[in-house]
Amino acid sequence: MATHILLINCPDETGLVYRITGVLYHHGHNIVSNNEFVDLESRQFFMRTEFLGEPDSASMLQELRAVLPPSAMIRFAHTGRRDIAILATKEPHCLGDLLIRHAYDELNARIRAVISNHDILGSLVEKFGIPFHYISHVEKERTEHEREVLAVLDEYDPEYVVLAKYMRVLTPAFVERYPNRIINIHHSFLPAFIGASPYRQAYERGVKIIGATAHFVNEGLDTGPIIAQSVTPVNHGYSAAEMAQAGRDVEEVALAKALKLVFEERVFLSGHRTIIFE
Amino acid sequence: MATHILLINCPDETGLVYRITGVLYHHGHNIVSNNEFVDLESRQFFMRTEFLGEPDSASMLQELRAVLPPSAMIRFAHTGRRDIAILATKEPHCLGDLLIRHAYDELNARIRAVISNHDILGSLVEKFGIPFHYISHVEKERTEHEREVLAVLDEYDPEYVVLAKYMRVLTPAFVERYPNRIINIHHSFLPAFIGASPYRQAYERGVKIIGATAHFVNEGLDTGPIIAQSVTPVNHGYSAAEMAQAGRDVEEVALAKALKLVFEERVFLSGHRTIIFE
Amino acid sequence: MATHILLINCPDETGLVYRITGVLYHHGHNIVSNNEFVDLESRQFFMRTEFLGEPDSASMLQELRAVLPPSAMIRFAHTGRRDIAILATKEPHCLGDLLIRHAYDELNARIRAVISNHDILGSLVEKFGIPFHYISHVEKERTEHEREVLAVLDEYDPEYVVLAKYMRVLTPAFVERYPNRIINIHHSFLPAFIGASPYRQAYERGVKIIGATAHFVNEGLDTGPIIAQSVTPVNHGYSAAEMAQAGRDVEEVALAKALKLVFEERVFLSGHRTIIFE
Amino acid sequence: MATHILLINCPDETGLVYRITGVLYHHGHNIVSNNEFVDLESRQFFMRTEFLGEPDSASMLQELRAVLPPSAMIRFAHTGRRDIAILATKEPHCLGDLLIRHAYDELNARIRAVISNHDILGSLVEKFGIPFHYISHVEKERTEHEREVLAVLDEYDPEYVVLAKYMRVLTPAFVERYPNRIINIHHSFLPAFIGASPYRQAYERGVKIIGATAHFVNEGLDTGPIIAQSVTPVNHGYSAAEMAQAGRDVEEVALAKALKLVFEERVFLSGHRTIIFE
Repeated sequence: MATHILLINCPDETGLVYRITGVLYHHGHNIVSNNEFVDLESRQFFMRTEFLGEPDSASMLQELRAVLPPSAMIRFAHTGRRDIAILATKEPHCLGDLLIRHAYDELNARIRAVISNHDILGSLVEKFGIPFHYISHVEKERTEHEREVLAVLDEYDPEYVVLAKYMRVLTPAFVERYPNRIINIHHSFLPAFIGASPYRQAYERGVKIIGATAHFVNEGLDTGPIIAQSVTPVNHGYSAAEMAQAGRDVEEVALAKALKLVFEERVFLSGHRTIIFE
Repeated sequence: MATHILLINCPDETGLVYRITGVLYHHGHNIVSNNEFVDLESRQFFMRTEFLGEPDSASMLQELRAVLPPSAMIRFAHTGRRDIAILATKEPHCLGDLLIRHAYDELNARIRAVISNHDILGSLVEKFGIPFHYISHVEKERTEHEREVLAVLDEYDPEYVVLAKYMRVLTPAFVERYPNRIINIHHSFLPAFIGASPYRQAYERGVKIIGATAHFVNEGLDTGPIIAQSVTPVNHGYSAAEMAQAGRDVEEVALAKALKLVFEERVFLSGHRTIIFE
Repeated sequence: MATHILLINCPDETGLVYRITGVLYHHGHNIVSNNEFVDLESRQFFMRTEFLGEPDSASMLQELRAVLPPSAMIRFAHTGRRDIAILATKEPHCLGDLLIRHAYDELNARIRAVISNHDILGSLVEKFGIPFHYISHVEKERTEHEREVLAVLDEYDPEYVVLAKYMRVLTPAFVERYPNRIINIHHSFLPAFIGASPYRQAYERGVKIIGATAHFVNEGLDTGPIIAQSVTPVNHGYSAAEMAQAGRDVEEVALAKALKLVFEERVFLSGHRTIIFE
Repeated sequence: MATHILLINCPDETGLVYRITGVLYHHGHNIVSNNEFVDLESRQFFMRTEFLGEPDSASMLQELRAVLPPSAMIRFAHTGRRDIAILATKEPHCLGDLLIRHAYDELNARIRAVISNHDILGSLVEKFGIPFHYISHVEKERTEHEREVLAVLDEYDPEYVVLAKYMRVLTPAFVERYPNRIINIHHSFLPAFIGASPYRQAYERGVKIIGATAHFVNEGLDTGPIIAQSVTPVNHGYSAAEMAQAGRDVEEVALAKALKLVFEERVFLSGHRTIIFE
């Protein structure tokens, strides 16, 4: 039988699980999996409940509103495929990995379109029968370029926007259009390197492990809430170019893991942190 | 404020979380963390609830019995230190790691005693002011030796018996005295090697990763339900002796992780598998 | 400047490195990287030397023969792309990963052709402009089927044959045609499971780590010398199907790593073991 | 038969391996393991040769000087135990791990003494029969305190000084006394956190992996050349205190690995990087 998911985040108080599961019980839903976590510092309550049966969302929502604090975030989610759009630039590795997973239905998503500010990935994307939109940023103001990208995104109305090595910084205005719905993959090292040529810096520092971080994009210049991180060992025999290749492999792994978690609705936001029910 | 833990395992049916949390709610306990899992194959329900406040266990148990299936396993547990005894033979690495963690209160346990069928670990154990019992197996029947070990264990009445490289096979009669309360650390490889000289076999097979498995001991000859596994890479430059040393390091890691999970009451048994709420 | 590789394996004796590097020196080659290992058990000497400049292989070979034991294996190798053929059955994950890496020249190989005993992977392969040969095994004797496969392989004359989830056991006669030049990816667990439905067995056993092994194929029924192994953690929440998916991800990683090592000529065979100069 | 190690670092030129192994050959030494690496950027040559037999170091050194560039670093090393001293402050985990390994001869070192600026680790150290020196820093100038520490170190004349969570910054004058012979273990994260309360920062940032870095101490404020790094996964359920505990475990692993590599003479320095022949 199909399952659905109920997601709740609100200030903590006594009896929340009881009140919430009461609503599910009175509607006859059997709970398959339930995760609940209270962040003792922020006093926030998080709950993800997977249950059997098709929910009467409207009336359940009303009943839940009645028993939960007024500021509660309450959401019903399906467990089917998410509609997504991918933004890329020139690098094919993360995009290619997503296209193969998508082709064999291992992504839990429908890739509606790929948009790039360069045209070289077009032939790869089109092999898989997915619309490719080349929107050059050359000789355009940042906001003008973003307006064009947003116009194409609007056509597809994706639930999530995945930045698969999209090398342009998004403006706050763009990010606000997809709040906590943009996922990025970021090279990041131990110790972390920022600025240009991160793998060059890693090489010169002689690191023994390199890593990657998948995260939500928020308005800050800094990376947003972390969803997944992955690492791989390297050694002195790696040139800066070989470190970059190892980095690409680990970026694929972290991004695929993050998307799986997000698409299965396992990720809550708690300020700058994520609560993840794996 | 201190937390306590409620553990429940029973056949699944609709409304269990609601009924259970109702009892907690009516007794005024706020839930800090709640994990629930239904094994869809066996139709078994598992729930671990950590809550604030000192429970009135007797009356709550009665109320829970009234709303749960008759076969339900219901248990209240504290979050404090467990009383444990350790059985060892000659190898010091796992025992030493536990003694250091214990000395600095990182084990969430009180080591009441160490028992060995050899005497060479005595000086190590006594450095830490812990009773050491040397019970030789030489010229004794297996059951006679076990009777002597059990007699000493009885003095200390441990909640768990940890086999820290104890190299003797336990009889079913011994195991029945501590059902699902004996934890062992087992060298195990990819592919797995059994019989004598496992590291010699691993060396000859040229494995690239070696591992270790911490598990509950049950009546079978086979290892019991797995609690934690850990691995480490090796290469052709490792002699069989060096593989064994790498194996010792990874055994320490897997055993320490398993004990942490068990002592925090995060481990349920489901037939031959474990359900672990990390 | 381009580099070349000299590979030597022979019984150990004093002065081998001196004699070998003398030949390189007198031909004016500067050594970029040199790895040498003596297996003290088998008394075998292994050396991989990467050097600058185009070698006069014929005369150097003659000079090396003159200073090395008569049984010495001596080989010059280039560092360019290897010609390979891939055998597959129905599963796309390892094949897809290799096709993407190939499309962006991250494989250090030219995929000359893909052969399968089913036709469903044809559309994927042909997206990338690579010849796909469907050779059904239905109603054919094993040797007859292999004869047809070998006939197609002969057309392409690959240096290596990669089994990317090819689900048929090869006969010794087939293996002898590509001695130590066939590389397979094998699901393998901790503890190892053989026979049908390995992931089902892993699920029932409740393992916490699953793995994969890339190895050379030899005449035995058993797996041949191990080249690379990779692992990933799983937990009780994984169904058998989800364990299989995690297994697919880790198979990709182990196979890609093994191919990189083999194509860079970093792998020696020593009986049933590999000596790998990473 | 015992092995010895020859270590050479010099500017690269053609024929170095030939000339060096010629000296070994003429002295009748059989090479067991040879690693050579040329850093193509800095044009530096690094070689580690493990050979059988007791070397006539003085005459071999003279012969090597004659065939190598004048600036060559040439060193003979034994494969036996190193004499070390440990500096600690209050935390017992790294120190305890080293003491246990030392007690069972798994450290390839003799711990000659432990020095601390606090006295609480004294009882642990003395359990193992190792001299403990408490040298408080209170009401002393930094240089005065260091002078006292150096005076005690002088008594023991250690080959290496291991900082096992020694929480004081060393002055350049101190570091110069043990050039590239001081090894430190540093908490470090993905992304890296500096300043006070690193685990608090990691918690607030919601990292999913934490790590540790073992490195040589040099004159800079920054960490010196990296020897080993290790990581472990964490999740939202970890409090800052639990992240710190996970950090302690991973610090032990990284430090033990680094010491093994250094004591086996597998680590070269190349500017700010290490070349490690594993």
